[in-house]
Amino acid sequence: MPKKGLKIATIGGGSSYTPELVEGFIKRYDELPVKDLYLVDIEEGKEKLEIVGNLAKRMVEKAGVDINIHLTLDRREAIKDADFVTTQFRVGLLDARIRDEKIPLKYDVIGQETTGPGGFAKAQRTIPVILDICKDIEELSPDAWLINFTNPSGIITETVLKHTNVKTIGLCNVPIGMVYGVAEMLDVDVERVSIDFSGLNHLVWGTHIYLDGEDITERLIDSFAGGRSMSMKNVPDIPWEPEFIKSLGMYPCPYHRYYYLTDKMLEEEKKEAATEGTRGEQVKKLEKELFELYKDPNLNVKPQQLEKRGGAHYSDAACSLISSIYNNKKDIHVVNIKNNGTILDLPDDVVIETNAVIDRNGAHPINIGHVPTKIRGLMQSVKAYEELTIEAGVTGDYYTALQALTIHPLVPSSTVAKKILDDIIRENIDYLPQYK
Amino acid sequence: MPKKGLKIATIGGGSSYTPELVEGFIKRYDELPVKDLYLVDIEEGKEKLEIVGNLAKRMVEKAGVDINIHLTLDRREAIKDADFVTTQFRVGLLDARIRDEKIPLKYDVIGQETTGPGGFAKAQRTIPVILDICKDIEELSPDAWLINFTNPSGIITETVLKHTNVKTIGLCNVPIGMVYGVAEMLDVDVERVSIDFSGLNHLVWGTHIYLDGEDITERLIDSFAGGRSMSMKNVPDIPWEPEFIKSLGMYPCPYHRYYYLTDKMLEEEKKEAATEGTRGEQVKKLEKELFELYKDPNLNVKPQQLEKRGGAHYSDAACSLISSIYNNKKDIHVVNIKNNGTILDLPDDVVIETNAVIDRNGAHPINIGHVPTKIRGLMQSVKAYEELTIEAGVTGDYYTALQALTIHPLVPSSTVAKKILDDIIRENIDYLPQYK
Amino acid sequence: MPKKGLKIATIGGGSSYTPELVEGFIKRYDELPVKDLYLVDIEEGKEKLEIVGNLAKRMVEKAGVDINIHLTLDRREAIKDADFVTTQFRVGLLDARIRDEKIPLKYDVIGQETTGPGGFAKAQRTIPVILDICKDIEELSPDAWLINFTNPSGIITETVLKHTNVKTIGLCNVPIGMVYGVAEMLDVDVERVSIDFSGLNHLVWGTHIYLDGEDITERLIDSFAGGRSMSMKNVPDIPWEPEFIKSLGMYPCPYHRYYYLTDKMLEEEKKEAATEGTRGEQVKKLEKELFELYKDPNLNVKPQQLEKRGGAHYSDAACSLISSIYNNKKDIHVVNIKNNGTILDLPDDVVIETNAVIDRNGAHPINIGHVPTKIRGLMQSVKAYEELTIEAGVTGDYYTALQALTIHPLVPSSTVAKKILDDIIRENIDYLPQYK
Amino acid sequence: MPKKGLKIATIGGGSSYTPELVEGFIKRYDELPVKDLYLVDIEEGKEKLEIVGNLAKRMVEKAGVDINIHLTLDRREAIKDADFVTTQFRVGLLDARIRDEKIPLKYDVIGQETTGPGGFAKAQRTIPVILDICKDIEELSPDAWLINFTNPSGIITETVLKHTNVKTIGLCNVPIGMVYGVAEMLDVDVERVSIDFSGLNHLVWGTHIYLDGEDITERLIDSFAGGRSMSMKNVPDIPWEPEFIKSLGMYPCPYHRYYYLTDKMLEEEKKEAATEGTRGEQVKKLEKELFELYKDPNLNVKPQQLEKRGGAHYSDAACSLISSIYNNKKDIHVVNIKNNGTILDLPDDVVIETNAVIDRNGAHPINIGHVPTKIRGLMQSVKAYEELTIEAGVTGDYYTALQALTIHPLVPSSTVAKKILDDIIRENIDYLPQYK
Repeated sequence: MPKKGLKIATIGGGSSYTPELVEGFIKRYDELPVKDLYLVDIEEGKEKLEIVGNLAKRMVEKAGVDINIHLTLDRREAIKDADFVTTQFRVGLLDARIRDEKIPLKYDVIGQETTGPGGFAKAQRTIPVILDICKDIEELSPDAWLINFTNPSGIITETVLKHTNVKTIGLCNVPIGMVYGVAEMLDVDVERVSIDFSGLNHLVWGTHIYLDGEDITERLIDSFAGGRSMSMKNVPDIPWEPEFIKSLGMYPCPYHRYYYLTDKMLEEEKKEAATEGTRGEQVKKLEKELFELYKDPNLNVKPQQLEKRGGAHYSDAACSLISSIYNNKKDIHVVNIKNNGTILDLPDDVVIETNAVIDRNGAHPINIGHVPTKIRGLMQSVKAYEELTIEAGVTGDYYTALQALTIHPLVPSSTVAKKILDDIIRENIDYLPQYK
Repeated sequence: MPKKGLKIATIGGGSSYTPELVEGFIKRYDELPVKDLYLVDIEEGKEKLEIVGNLAKRMVEKAGVDINIHLTLDRREAIKDADFVTTQFRVGLLDARIRDEKIPLKYDVIGQETTGPGGFAKAQRTIPVILDICKDIEELSPDAWLINFTNPSGIITETVLKHTNVKTIGLCNVPIGMVYGVAEMLDVDVERVSIDFSGLNHLVWGTHIYLDGEDITERLIDSFAGGRSMSMKNVPDIPWEPEFIKSLGMYPCPYHRYYYLTDKMLEEEKKEAATEGTRGEQVKKLEKELFELYKDPNLNVKPQQLEKRGGAHYSDAACSLISSIYNNKKDIHVVNIKNNGTILDLPDDVVIETNAVIDRNGAHPINIGHVPTKIRGLMQSVKAYEELTIEAGVTGDYYTALQALTIHPLVPSSTVAKKILDDIIRENIDYLPQYK
Repeated sequence: MPKKGLKIATIGGGSSYTPELVEGFIKRYDELPVKDLYLVDIEEGKEKLEIVGNLAKRMVEKAGVDINIHLTLDRREAIKDADFVTTQFRVGLLDARIRDEKIPLKYDVIGQETTGPGGFAKAQRTIPVILDICKDIEELSPDAWLINFTNPSGIITETVLKHTNVKTIGLCNVPIGMVYGVAEMLDVDVERVSIDFSGLNHLVWGTHIYLDGEDITERLIDSFAGGRSMSMKNVPDIPWEPEFIKSLGMYPCPYHRYYYLTDKMLEEEKKEAATEGTRGEQVKKLEKELFELYKDPNLNVKPQQLEKRGGAHYSDAACSLISSIYNNKKDIHVVNIKNNGTILDLPDDVVIETNAVIDRNGAHPINIGHVPTKIRGLMQSVKAYEELTIEAGVTGDYYTALQALTIHPLVPSSTVAKKILDDIIRENIDYLPQYK
Repeated sequence: MPKKGLKIATIGGGSSYTPELVEGFIKRYDELPVKDLYLVDIEEGKEKLEIVGNLAKRMVEKAGVDINIHLTLDRREAIKDADFVTTQFRVGLLDARIRDEKIPLKYDVIGQETTGPGGFAKAQRTIPVILDICKDIEELSPDAWLINFTNPSGIITETVLKHTNVKTIGLCNVPIGMVYGVAEMLDVDVERVSIDFSGLNHLVWGTHIYLDGEDITERLIDSFAGGRSMSMKNVPDIPWEPEFIKSLGMYPCPYHRYYYLTDKMLEEEKKEAATEGTRGEQVKKLEKELFELYKDPNLNVKPQQLEKRGGAHYSDAACSLISSIYNNKKDIHVVNIKNNGTILDLPDDVVIETNAVIDRNGAHPINIGHVPTKIRGLMQSVKAYEELTIEAGVTGDYYTALQALTIHPLVPSSTVAKKILDDIIRENIDYLPQYK
């Protein structure tokens, strides 16, 4: 019999996303009896934690559910005996993200939160912290599940799987967003749509799309090629080339634009940076507005405006996943987990993003075998970059870091890689203990 | 929207198992609207077909469902436009099975319907027929699913997958029987038990056993070791060695006795053959009695006595599988399907028996990766035998057949293999066109 | 006993390289008794064939060896009963190469004979011709070895292995050139140097370098990093970044500059194109001068000036390989052959460039296993491009061609890929029967 | 430049094989300048060491080479700064071997020094000792090559590779014996014969046989099938079934008789045991006679009679291998080394017996890929046994040991496995510290 009265610890609890998470737990209260939700943050995030935490308290009160919201700066207290730990922290806050976007742009390279050198920098800052958190989990709640949605989610999840004993599943809202995107295009209930996903986090292809189990990939491809698109708040919605999308024959994720439409995306990014500011700068403004809203003592539900923020479905996917584990549901989620031969073209010990059956024992990927040649090379090449990024993040080895950046498909040469790397290390040195 | 009014063709419709199949369709009529059930048989099986077919008609009438039972000797008529084809035929009838049991016993080798030389002989007789049936399906109902439960089920399924374009899934009642066995041992509802299966048909290990998702393998192993057992009607219930079962640490299938307890099983078989007759001889008697029962014009349900026959859950598993496909259920069944990297220790193109998610597009195996070393070698060695058996069955090459039998773990030498092979060919020559 | 009096057919016999080939056979006459050397060319190459063929005749006469030089436009006569067929033809001649260089440059993309879109175009022109030649070999000399050094050598060799029954080995002068480069740097005899090569044609890494069997990789890397370099006539000798080369820790081939130093190489190419002309244009001039030299009736040896041409060691490597096969030498050459698991990170059926033992039965690669992560991704990604390039070359499928170009690491987007592809097809249409 | 004046340490130097080893070094003195040969033994072997050591001294004196023979019981002194360490010790001496032969025979199971339960027992005794020796090498001569020919050679080599940092190559005289066997059959010089070997130690198949590089496998198979055979002193020469050998189509090693002709071999073993004694008992007598000979102060060469002993070519293969390493020869030997993907059907980290190029850096296997299905299963199944045997030998885990024996193809059941295991442990307990 599953235990009643769950304890959840949310690292980075002061995040603007927290209301969605709280809403997710409230909605599922009958099937997922959360008793204690610990929102943890660091000193610098104390004010935000107070604001969002008080909103959370009003939300549960309004909903009439018996969830205790705890606000704390003591991570170990939160983790102790937790059943689930979720992570949504951002080392260096939005200012670091803005730097991540601006450094590559100086060298005419895509500057993006998770893809390319920006993602590399974020990984280097995040890896020491996640390893630290995992040490706490190993000690204080070794049976807890870590549900990671700290970006770059695939890389962080792989770091945890390779370097700790913590049970973890990585999450991202891109796949679920793609399913919603298809449902919208077809104007059908989202439950009727399913997609076979193959790939890596933020580099995932929908290889087959189904409506009520019928394969409608070809039909949909035609309508993508005809101009309809699906993107995310974070990613400029540049349209695909019709012939390209037909030749691909599958559903690329929004982040694929950085690879398949590099030139146009770079141009767009540069234009945006020069006018409205980088995406990070825009988000910083949005966040300010959100937290103003959150302060309103009359607000006791998740405000509509959160959706502009870009993380739609993120927290809901997390609550849904937690419920599937807790209730041994054996339903299918798209998650970041150890490959273990699921995709035969990648090493066994790396993390992939893929459909998996979720039960009380975790995520069990559905076998894929070999992927089509046309997506194989890019997937392999980004995975090699990710593996070196993790190794660099753990060891702080400069040469490994230089190779990681050099082989990233969006970095044009070892010369540029070196310049970007040197800038990243210099500008982030306070967050990079491993490089000291 | 899925089509209404399904057509099912059952090859070997005169089998004594048919009432269970009919019962399975009746039970599921609401979710699985079968309109036409074609029971096909050959001239020699005409009488049985009449008997069992009439019972089937009485059963649907009694149940008040609108399923039309068609009895026919015209296979092509049955297959034409079928949505599902199920196979449960036995080339050479029970007399062939009895020969399969007796030939190996002459040489002090396990004589069994599906395991060892008996299974080899059965495969050689069945392969030409299944290939013929598949030609009809390719021509007359290319979109139909072939649900194969003709034995040796794994070998026959692999033959179809390697040598035809027919969509097929192989079934066996052993895994479902093992789940029922555990439920009985624990005295719990069968729905609460689940097992991770890895292996081949009739050589499948339950690597982990769960109750409500909790891993109870170790606890169960102890109770197996303490003497509790689970077997099948077909397989003598010799108890496992306690130390052996503990060292194995997983749940062997009943047929594993032929490999792990060869000496005792052989002794038991010889004793049985000398007294009650081989299992085939016993079944022949049982069948006679069953058909006597079936003739009773007042009988309009599946008779209790069918369960002694040994195929419990077989047909029910088939109906359940068909319903999962038809209804796009995405639930988990244990099936025989193409490996495709699910078990990394076996070739990609062979058939394995494993847990798979079933939907409208077929069976999608849940990734396994590498299996434990202790079960790896036997699995690989029997698979090599199976591959050669298929090649011999398709080509009729004597040398390939000799290698197949020689490398079977239950055959002690190439000398004995040759004697058995020569006997098999001589005694089955009417059913072995490929060897002529 | 090996046959005496070999027949060799050289397709593209009018090439300026032919004197090196003839010299190679003359040098080895004692161990490799060539009796008939057929130089084959097409109508457009007739004049060159005459010139170079007559030089070849003077060379063998001067050397006093009994090799008969045959000049012919009849390919089938040359191939019939040949023991070895060598290929060094260039479909569309140097004018096609110049186009291959110029089209990508229009879009700010590397324009190179074998790497990137230029190599793609060359492959599309060459594949139909090589398949045609192989048909002749299959019919007229099925036991002959095809020694391919037509570029892109890896792609052409893989095409032959995947789509014909011809026994083939692909050759390139890059690896042998790298060995010579090291010997020069160390000022030692070339026989004392050996290198472990891993990779693809024109994308091969020297993973370990040995002097008399002692691993001197680290020492050499330091001296590369210190500024010493090794390049080829075809590839501008841009120096490596010292930190980059140290972080790589192995010996990149000259063509790696296109990937690791893309920005500088592109700049250099554009400058060169604007001044001396593209490499193809320069070669065209050189060739003219060479053929003027070749006409000299007093010339009866390979002229020094051939070395400027850029193909040093090419023909010598071919003669040496042929001799190792003929004499069952079991020595080690670097060749392009079927992977077959040699590099575990690439598919089994693709061609790799690697060290192999050569004997009468062909080339037997020395096992590599997994390659280091830092070179894995680029190797895999270029191989995926190569596989699609072959598929496009054989089928003429536009979409496959578009995917091939899009995924090439040097092509920045699907938009640019499409433009380049359309230009390639339009400007080469006379040589692309498969696209008509 | 390679170092002059090598130091060799031979563990088990008191073995009757030592004169062949000494002869091997004398023969190669010009290319392999051994300065110090340390013959090491244990207290119990002191007398033999004296006898054979003095013979060795007379041999080098007679030959006039400057090799110093050192006799010592101090293993660490011998290993210190050695260039090569060779091992030929036998834990428990011949009495242990005789027990290994007799225990299985009690249960009607093949009783053999290296194959089956006998080999298992020998491995359990040897593993603790070899790990101890390797600790000394790691400390005292970390750059030394360990040339292992202690049996079971493949298992011991795999133990060293998996559990130590010692550079090692395993050797066996079976493959070289098979090459000699073919040369004899054809009556040609042994240098003209070569064989492609695939498999495991004492389970190696000659997949292709060449004379001067020409594939003569088929011709030879016919002559095997016609009755000609090749065996070893240790293995009764039971003739192969003609049809079997034709269906196999390759060259089985003598030890394959235990698998392919189990029944006849068992019968022969039982007969022999009842009359002349087990092979171990016979060898014990032979050894006594040999040492009587060795004592003769006039003997100063290897005596003819040593050949009856059964280890022909063993020591010579070792000297030849050492010379290839020392001289960076790049010639081909058949050795036991890490698979690393050479045979795709076995794990990467296991040891296989295969053709490899030998140079100063060790043994580099020539790629094999997938092996034919007919030999795949047996190879995989014995390898699984070997892996468990190593694990049991290192950990002393009873359950692992029981699984190892149960899955061995020659052990008929878990019941018999348990009986044999219990006997082995009881009778060898003094040599099995890991089981205490």
